Amino acid sequence: MSPRSSVEPVALSGIGEFDHECDVLVVGFGAAGAAAAYEAAAAGADVLVLERSSGPGGTSAQSGGELYLGGGTRVQKACGFDDTPDDMFAFLKAALGPHANEEKLRLYCDGSVDHFEWFRARGVPFKESLFDAPGWMPYTDDGLMWLGENAWPYNTIARPAPRGHRPETPMFAGGILMEKLIAAVAEAGAATHQDTYATNLVVDGDGRVAGVVARRFSETVTYRARGGVVLASGGFVDNDEMLADHAPVLLGHDKVSDGTSDGSGIRMATALGAAARRMAAVEIALTANPAVVCRGMLVDGLGRRFINEDVYPGLFSHQAVQHQPGPYWAIIDEAGYDEIAEADMWGVHPKYAAETLAELEESLGLPSGSLEATVETYNRFAEKGEDPCFRKDPKWLRPLKGPFAVIDPADGFFGAGRHGAGTGAGGFTLGGLDTTVDGEVRNNSGEPIPGLYAAGRTASGIHGEGYISGTSLGDGTFFGRRAGRSAASRKVSE
Amino acid sequence: MSPRSSVEPVALSGIGEFDHECDVLVVGFGAAGAAAAYEAAAAGADVLVLERSSGPGGTSAQSGGELYLGGGTRVQKACGFDDTPDDMFAFLKAALGPHANEEKLRLYCDGSVDHFEWFRARGVPFKESLFDAPGWMPYTDDGLMWLGENAWPYNTIARPAPRGHRPETPMFAGGILMEKLIAAVAEAGAATHQDTYATNLVVDGDGRVAGVVARRFSETVTYRARGGVVLASGGFVDNDEMLADHAPVLLGHDKVSDGTSDGSGIRMATALGAAARRMAAVEIALTANPAVVCRGMLVDGLGRRFINEDVYPGLFSHQAVQHQPGPYWAIIDEAGYDEIAEADMWGVHPKYAAETLAELEESLGLPSGSLEATVETYNRFAEKGEDPCFRKDPKWLRPLKGPFAVIDPADGFFGAGRHGAGTGAGGFTLGGLDTTVDGEVRNNSGEPIPGLYAAGRTASGIHGEGYISGTSLGDGTFFGRRAGRSAASRKVSE
Repeated sequence: MSPRSSVEPVALSGIGEFDHECDVLVVGFGAAGAAAAYEAAAAGADVLVLERSSGPGGTSAQSGGELYLGGGTRVQKACGFDDTPDDMFAFLKAALGPHANEEKLRLYCDGSVDHFEWFRARGVPFKESLFDAPGWMPYTDDGLMWLGENAWPYNTIARPAPRGHRPETPMFAGGILMEKLIAAVAEAGAATHQDTYATNLVVDGDGRVAGVVARRFSETVTYRARGGVVLASGGFVDNDEMLADHAPVLLGHDKVSDGTSDGSGIRMATALGAAARRMAAVEIALTANPAVVCRGMLVDGLGRRFINEDVYPGLFSHQAVQHQPGPYWAIIDEAGYDEIAEADMWGVHPKYAAETLAELEESLGLPSGSLEATVETYNRFAEKGEDPCFRKDPKWLRPLKGPFAVIDPADGFFGAGRHGAGTGAGGFTLGGLDTTVDGEVRNNSGEPIPGLYAAGRTASGIHGEGYISGTSLGDGTFFGRRAGRSAASRKVSE
Repeated sequence: MSPRSSVEPVALSGIGEFDHECDVLVVGFGAAGAAAAYEAAAAGADVLVLERSSGPGGTSAQSGGELYLGGGTRVQKACGFDDTPDDMFAFLKAALGPHANEEKLRLYCDGSVDHFEWFRARGVPFKESLFDAPGWMPYTDDGLMWLGENAWPYNTIARPAPRGHRPETPMFAGGILMEKLIAAVAEAGAATHQDTYATNLVVDGDGRVAGVVARRFSETVTYRARGGVVLASGGFVDNDEMLADHAPVLLGHDKVSDGTSDGSGIRMATALGAAARRMAAVEIALTANPAVVCRGMLVDGLGRRFINEDVYPGLFSHQAVQHQPGPYWAIIDEAGYDEIAEADMWGVHPKYAAETLAELEESLGLPSGSLEATVETYNRFAEKGEDPCFRKDPKWLRPLKGPFAVIDPADGFFGAGRHGAGTGAGGFTLGGLDTTVDGEVRNNSGEPIPGLYAAGRTASGIHGEGYISGTSLGDGTFFGRRAGRSAASRKVSE
């Protein structure tokens, strides 16, 4: 629909007979919707899932498939790591912060081992091995990876343990994750209506959500939900008008989405008086190569370093795009470049090379002397194994000596190759509906709206201003399951 | 009320007889409410203003009273400046950006000379003289001041002209501004009910706003508004729960407010399905003294400069608090300090003094060598009258030589002295209801909600992510007037 087509609620009294009825209606068949549908069906509810595309999977199926889980999972133990829910909580509170949602985060960490086992029970395979190198995503099928837990300051806040869990497949693992969840949903007995796009909520005279109006091609289809509606139709990164209103930092960058994240779930609910929160919060990834910047440095448009480059790359991306003037450059010297395995370069090669930093300053349009000053300071302390401003791990510290090379993040995954934006950055939205830990959507007075639930990026989850890979699939499925159970229990109890 | 007391709409059918009736009901008697009430009354409407405090004025009366106006006002001409609406637009688009509201901004700039004359016609006095020094606020009664129009990069974007207009009084001029507007409202025939706090909107069966329910001490009072309700009750900086949900950057800082900016106007409307936008946008001021930092430098918690210090201080504040690690320090040398008039120090004196930068680094807890590197680079270019990274005006550039002094922003206006927060920073919210240029509040489908208007910080105005003094009183009154006229014309035409 157009960004401003009507999302106003429709009165139950105005709808004669519904085309379809069910107990729990789930809108959107990505990971969060799948989790909600599975649990609702497993609890005995008659469940229907609406998916606007011609097949299930959503953005989740196209993702890396990382699940941020810990507290002592089977994979962590097999790889030799002790972990506790408290360490996981302390790490995420800091890394997803400031202002992470501590109530949700506490439940998420305490329930993480069980949640991991839930995926296994659904048939999602996890190899019990660690990918032990900096990177956005392993090119192996290892089941565990570091996501910055061992970088400063996080290594001083919680005992480091890798918590990036991923299904057993090289690179993008979202496909296999969704394949298993989709099968589980079908097996639990939920039905799916594809090509069906929910446009408006149906509300009874008491303000209770009673169903949805949807569109299937040119046809209007109505759905009665006796128990509740679970909105799990994603965020709003594909809706530029909503981005301009709420999260303008993402305008012009690439969109991490299957193209259907138009915010319709959020808008249908706020049209009814639901509260939204943290609508400006975003995930943003800059495809600066972690293998390069760990060994060299990441500088901004003034030639300055601004973070320890061995931190989780989502956090150096956030710091760059949200807080530093661009463009951004990955700088490395010959000795560092020679160390990097070809696979770790992701097919990207240096844009510039030069014997001296002065030459690079000119190529990059940096103020004269800026990069020289940055490298001089870096080298002076690196000699001593120190990085007093940013505290990169000493194992990556070494004075940089020419010749130098520059890798342009815009030549990476979020460069011109994918959707054409070519800024080197891409992301998605984290803000959404204000929900209880059971997925109930709150109104502006803080009270649940009867019959309305939300999960995944349609809701505001565990995140504050930071983001770590696997926390969106992670909290979407964790709280999606809770939302599905809530909606099903409502049906049973009424 | 408590942050989460009910703001849900009340059905008209549930209210028997109203306690009071009027054509246009204005909620909140700050500058925006006054402007709306005046215009509605002047257009012949029967107008009632509700004010929750025991007297009118709101936050506006406690403010500096700056009005950002230009395009060739009488004061600008008298001071020898040619200005045009186009230059004003180009400056504000950049300084309030990125993502300023260009539709509102165009009207605001084109109507600015007329709006200035409207204030004069209401009796607001403006002295035809320029305060020509860097500062947050003149300590003189001059009627015009610079607000960064002459600093890079703005001086390359629009022809510089000072546009900070202020009523004729030293320091805080909001009192005299509101005194004149309050008198004008009374003279136009609008009535005021004080100690009256609007809690809920009243809505008829067609979704039209028909009035409000209010509380006066322990009593409930109902108001019927035949034409419309104008919400002008301020932003939400005093509501920490709303800050946590929407603008957490302000948590813990001082609040620029009279204490009543609890977001109730925004919440009453969003409870009804109104759209809000840019809820994360804020004004934030760091009381780093412009007279000091222009002559020296402003550094962050890593000892780095990050902006040209001669820019409008609201913009260096925004850059600091939103984007740099703190704490922030104003560094100056003896020669610079000796140049500054006592009145320009605002009663604040250096916290530290030292012969060498190494000593200062230790006193300030900065990484060893960081401040030395910053000053060394600064001096090297200042010798040549250059500032290649940040482009401070050459008139402020001079190599800094010890002894040095450090002024702590937390010793300023937003330090421990005022509300006790003591971070050196304070601010207010800029996000609010999505309104048309005529003040109509839009729903989530982009359509006006019949009978509902908003202005001032209850609405999202001309601002993108930046802020310049005088643009809040400026757009609040400009679009407040338009909202008042809209609400009054609705009454007449129906």
